[in-house]
Amino acid sequence: MALKTPYLMFLGDAPDQLAAKTAAGVVHWRPDICLGQLRLDGCNADLGIPDMTLEAAFEAGARTIIVGVANRGGVMGQTWIDVLVRALEFGFDISSGLHSKLGDVTAIAEAAAKHGRQLTDARHPTRGFDVANGKKRTGKRLLPVGTDCSVGKMYTALAMEREMQARGMRATFRATGQTGIFIAGDGVSVDAVVADFISGATEWLAPENEPDHWDLIEGQGSLFHASYAGVSLGLLHGAQADALVLCHEPTRTHMRGLPDYPLPGIGECIAANEAAARLTNPAASCIGIAVNTHNMPNGEAEAYLAALEDEHGLPAVDPVATGVGKLVDALP
Amino acid sequence: MALKTPYLMFLGDAPDQLAAKTAAGVVHWRPDICLGQLRLDGCNADLGIPDMTLEAAFEAGARTIIVGVANRGGVMGQTWIDVLVRALEFGFDISSGLHSKLGDVTAIAEAAAKHGRQLTDARHPTRGFDVANGKKRTGKRLLPVGTDCSVGKMYTALAMEREMQARGMRATFRATGQTGIFIAGDGVSVDAVVADFISGATEWLAPENEPDHWDLIEGQGSLFHASYAGVSLGLLHGAQADALVLCHEPTRTHMRGLPDYPLPGIGECIAANEAAARLTNPAASCIGIAVNTHNMPNGEAEAYLAALEDEHGLPAVDPVATGVGKLVDALP
Repeated sequence: MALKTPYLMFLGDAPDQLAAKTAAGVVHWRPDICLGQLRLDGCNADLGIPDMTLEAAFEAGARTIIVGVANRGGVMGQTWIDVLVRALEFGFDISSGLHSKLGDVTAIAEAAAKHGRQLTDARHPTRGFDVANGKKRTGKRLLPVGTDCSVGKMYTALAMEREMQARGMRATFRATGQTGIFIAGDGVSVDAVVADFISGATEWLAPENEPDHWDLIEGQGSLFHASYAGVSLGLLHGAQADALVLCHEPTRTHMRGLPDYPLPGIGECIAANEAAARLTNPAASCIGIAVNTHNMPNGEAEAYLAALEDEHGLPAVDPVATGVGKLVDALP
Repeated sequence: MALKTPYLMFLGDAPDQLAAKTAAGVVHWRPDICLGQLRLDGCNADLGIPDMTLEAAFEAGARTIIVGVANRGGVMGQTWIDVLVRALEFGFDISSGLHSKLGDVTAIAEAAAKHGRQLTDARHPTRGFDVANGKKRTGKRLLPVGTDCSVGKMYTALAMEREMQARGMRATFRATGQTGIFIAGDGVSVDAVVADFISGATEWLAPENEPDHWDLIEGQGSLFHASYAGVSLGLLHGAQADALVLCHEPTRTHMRGLPDYPLPGIGECIAANEAAARLTNPAASCIGIAVNTHNMPNGEAEAYLAALEDEHGLPAVDPVATGVGKLVDALP
């Protein structure tokens, strides 16, 4: 699903900033391709980029509307539909991060067909995949893995891509979730593929490449998350990662969405991921730790990172606060 | 997908016995509900049960046609379609283990709608599932796990169900694949659910039950299979198994479909499965080993099983040759 750029970010009537989290992530990483935002009455989110009409955005070059917002109750309201149909008439493609599919809304499907526009749903794979074959691919791959969901795996991969490219290294971010797909312009939502094909989809996503090229594959979930570990393991095997980065959020009191489940220890989590990764790449090794220290009490982050480095013998960074230079230095 | 019994087994023009493997498995475990077989010209498979016409089978009480056969090239030929449409007119439901869906064949879909018959595709889940919540459920559960795919996990679960019921214990086989679904009359093909819901589907399949009741959940794949381990891990977490049985085929020279991948050691495989299972059930423990010794040289099986018992301190059986009594004895 290669998306035409630049984008006009559609926020609809997002009730708060959190509902526009996906759109905000895209703007953070790709301000160059996010020309403006389109907000309807009642929208309480703001991406900090210019408000634009469909007309002005198209004139400025935008070619895809990104629906990077959660809608209320999973049902698309008539005000959204009217605007999106007008966008299709105008000449835009639409790409959505909603759970429901754009094409399931009759008026949108008809307008897209009539005007020859592309509708894509980032949460829904648009193609089939082969079963993984486990064959060694040339090129190098890094996969961030987590003690939990939502601990900065995508951010770490994107920050490393930027740092590596700035150093003149060959590096490509590979998106496995909706926000990542909008940022990269393509990718596969691996948690939405049929279970038998998780690893196969990952092999497809990060194919053979030049020996000095790094794929930075967006991680998903955690081997220690009771709901999603199957996705994480399939991704780990399909990635054939040479390098892992362990991602962690130290103020989390339990696994996300599972109040009865404590977080695993960092050492335990590194060991389990390395052991599993070595099935498809015996050279797989954790090369560092990435911590989201944002919620830690002021002044504690530095000592915490230093203690992690001592305990695990690995560089420990906060990708936002310290950058990821130490992780790039540690690549094999 | 609860199926009406008894069944008429449809073999079409199966080129050889292997193509009818699914149907043969159903007949092996449920001869009581497999009234007869329906074979077309060119069929080289034989289930060893009476050949019956649609008329005779319906007269004898059969209510579902089981398409338990692989079709050539994945496309259903006109001779199959003609017979299946006639079966629907006659009063049968149809349940298929084909990769393609029955309802995708227009003539079959139309006949089913016209006559109000049920079409089910055992490989395709017919409902959605919630994400797993990881909450402890009452009742007990056993899951066979494997060093590889196709090493006797379904057979072990079914043999244990039979042995336990014969002893007056409360036990229910829970099917996770097409053959198991035909045998049990319902179930979920877990490798075909959307990846995010593998564990959730398993929680649904083996729900809360009486404290002394055992679910015997059909295992899938292997944590050490580079193509399918994600499914195996999601199943392991969703099962919340109290007891595991390690299944193995000792003459296998590499992982099924992966010539470059050797089989894991039995001890290593037990340890990895126990460690992963304990995330959702800290009491999970491997209680025995089930070996398919069929391909071993004559006379070696007994010594092999004895050596396994010595090495691992667990009962080791061949479910076909020795029965599974020792495994049932070892249940907690």
